[in-house]
Amino acid sequence: MRPYEVIHRKRDGHPVPPEAIADLVARYAEGSVPDYQMAAFCMAVFFRGMSEPELQALTGAMLRSGDVLDLSDIPGTKVDKHSTGGVGDKTSLAVAPLVAACGVKVPMVSGRGLGHTGGTLDKLQSIPGFQIQLPVERFREIVASVGACLVGQTDRIAPADRKLYALRDLTATVESIPLIAGSIMSKKLAEGIDGLVLDVKVGSGAFMKRLPDAALLARTLVGIGRGMGKDVVALVTDMDQPLGQAVGNALEVKEILLLLHGGGPADLREVTVLLAAEMLLLGGVATTLAEGRSRVEQAIADGRGFRKLLEIVEAQGGDPRALVEPDRLPRAGRVVDVGAPVTGVVEAIDAEAVGLAAMALGAGRSRVEDAVDPAAGLEVWKKVGDRVEAGEPVVSMHVGARPLESPDAVAARLRAAWRIGAGPASPGPLVLQRIEEGGT
Amino acid sequence: MRPYEVIHRKRDGHPVPPEAIADLVARYAEGSVPDYQMAAFCMAVFFRGMSEPELQALTGAMLRSGDVLDLSDIPGTKVDKHSTGGVGDKTSLAVAPLVAACGVKVPMVSGRGLGHTGGTLDKLQSIPGFQIQLPVERFREIVASVGACLVGQTDRIAPADRKLYALRDLTATVESIPLIAGSIMSKKLAEGIDGLVLDVKVGSGAFMKRLPDAALLARTLVGIGRGMGKDVVALVTDMDQPLGQAVGNALEVKEILLLLHGGGPADLREVTVLLAAEMLLLGGVATTLAEGRSRVEQAIADGRGFRKLLEIVEAQGGDPRALVEPDRLPRAGRVVDVGAPVTGVVEAIDAEAVGLAAMALGAGRSRVEDAVDPAAGLEVWKKVGDRVEAGEPVVSMHVGARPLESPDAVAARLRAAWRIGAGPASPGPLVLQRIEEGGT
Repeated sequence: MRPYEVIHRKRDGHPVPPEAIADLVARYAEGSVPDYQMAAFCMAVFFRGMSEPELQALTGAMLRSGDVLDLSDIPGTKVDKHSTGGVGDKTSLAVAPLVAACGVKVPMVSGRGLGHTGGTLDKLQSIPGFQIQLPVERFREIVASVGACLVGQTDRIAPADRKLYALRDLTATVESIPLIAGSIMSKKLAEGIDGLVLDVKVGSGAFMKRLPDAALLARTLVGIGRGMGKDVVALVTDMDQPLGQAVGNALEVKEILLLLHGGGPADLREVTVLLAAEMLLLGGVATTLAEGRSRVEQAIADGRGFRKLLEIVEAQGGDPRALVEPDRLPRAGRVVDVGAPVTGVVEAIDAEAVGLAAMALGAGRSRVEDAVDPAAGLEVWKKVGDRVEAGEPVVSMHVGARPLESPDAVAARLRAAWRIGAGPASPGPLVLQRIEEGGT
Repeated sequence: MRPYEVIHRKRDGHPVPPEAIADLVARYAEGSVPDYQMAAFCMAVFFRGMSEPELQALTGAMLRSGDVLDLSDIPGTKVDKHSTGGVGDKTSLAVAPLVAACGVKVPMVSGRGLGHTGGTLDKLQSIPGFQIQLPVERFREIVASVGACLVGQTDRIAPADRKLYALRDLTATVESIPLIAGSIMSKKLAEGIDGLVLDVKVGSGAFMKRLPDAALLARTLVGIGRGMGKDVVALVTDMDQPLGQAVGNALEVKEILLLLHGGGPADLREVTVLLAAEMLLLGGVATTLAEGRSRVEQAIADGRGFRKLLEIVEAQGGDPRALVEPDRLPRAGRVVDVGAPVTGVVEAIDAEAVGLAAMALGAGRSRVEDAVDPAAGLEVWKKVGDRVEAGEPVVSMHVGARPLESPDAVAARLRAAWRIGAGPASPGPLVLQRIEEGGT
């Protein structure tokens, strides 16, 4: 089927044969279908969506456009976790060592963080010496011997997705649930995993602002993964306020160290343990979620999780002393408190504004080529439901060496991001849905 | 506003500032906005439509991307007619000389026919020697002295439209009413006209199959024209069966000669006279439609229309003897009748199938670079409401020198295009709507 006909059918809402979709993507990747036809197709998909067979075909073609890791010679079940991204979402840093400590292999390949939600790789790179680009053989060795390895995507993973994403980014076709889902899954399925736990964030600090959209994305992701023969489960979790207290790379690593030592904020700990428990279930080392939870909690309590993180960091060239003495992690030269304008109860936090504030202080990047300042970020002291006195700090700014905006301007925006009222108020549930079945 | 933002706003159904649309088109024409962004924009327009100010801006920018004729130094009102195209639609060939004979100047610049609906230029070129590409100065001279001139578009008319149309043709974004309307009007408004009569065809042989679509296109066209300060009126006319009897270039010229001599099929004559009368109204030489009609009918009756056509043909280098002795026009070497399979009444004709049959015999082109055979085409003997005996010819095929398909195959399709039943049946009205007010 000619590209024109594929676009035409999609435009009019008629089913497109899956093999025609696969052919379109393959020919786009090799350059024989021009950008303008792909752009028109993506916009038609924005309006018409994709059926499950069409989306399988799209994802499969993007996956096959590049290298697909085969880790089948490494004994045991390989399970990864993927989050759609949120403010203060650092669970990967704890989930990977905890799950590996419990006996499930975690081959984690991540993309760079873009926008305010940050990326796991940026957080890891605040540990001096930590290498995120490793040869494939070294990656396999670390997964096999240590049990978890966290690296960056190479250019050889799903190049069709990279090309397509760049096009979507220029043609206002990013915000399409099937295209988002296909993009995520084409990269994750290239990792050679058997199972995948998805953390789909919803709320003011997430890409998906509304629960129906997030639930649809979750079902779509699960549907693709299951269609490709993988064990996949998705949790839709709250991102209406930052997760934990730390936002920013080194600050988030420090918070993870607290967690692995048995402390840290309760919300972060809860989401981390749940995600890890789901991974243990998929990995076959727990038969119920309750059992998974208790194994994860034990790995925190007896320090195995922390020691596993040390092993991972050492294996990937990082300085383990930075984990034992967290003061060795990068620190901002200037920390400024932002006080509450009035006395009352925190009723809501604009999490996206918090993320953008952290970015403005130097913690994030707006373009792929931007550098991040590992020391920059925020510590969130008052969360939804907390009482606060006028003038009492709600958040502290860790100002990077070259902030993008003046700290005063950032402080003003942060102050406006806290809605303080008469109360009472309480945060919503941390987990809104658990999705095991695919669907569109 | 960046192209990305224009696409994004259109995608989400938000108004786009007209100047941002104009800027997008201008930058697309000059090559600084890439095809893929324009393709995404067109697809978003397909789904979201355009407001009248947006469409004015689009049309104006396409118009200004090229030369705009100024005929203001030619005395009198300049009025053109444009048809959206239909099977056997040859009215321009009679309308132009009749209106010019009545004292209104007709500067008619046409595009090439594409697809089954044929083009005025192809019909004219079946007259030996007729020139459709003239220097602008010669075009002005003929309009001024003869009163009408019919030429082809140059590359310097609305180049942005030509570039955009080629892109739409590859990205399944042709079928968008605002984009169709903008394309038509950007070219027509470049002619230096004061008034325009639009013949919007509707039915099985037209681009618009349904009345609501055709009426919307008509209102959109009128709205653009009026917004640009022109006198514009549209007739929505029937194209559920071929207009007249002749389909194909030389055959249609012969039928026009019959008409200008006072004969010819009644439906063709009625539509021609009405369109010409509307032009006289816009041109200010008639104050009512009835007066316009009677002037046009008189120009037929006293032979002034025919003599004006002779003048036009002579001025444009054509051989006038071909009009006086129509046997000098190209003739097919082989004419084959197609008989009715059963006895009954013609209840419907699939006009599109008739057009495609004529094309298959050599009368049309499927690509711009194809040549047409002026002799090829069809003569339609039985129209809706006519009684027919089994075996009696419903249509005759004039087989071109190099038909695209075997005449037998074409005959079989033609036979199937006539629905013959118990009757009674009668054709619908020739004019379905008259539209003077714009709207979307």
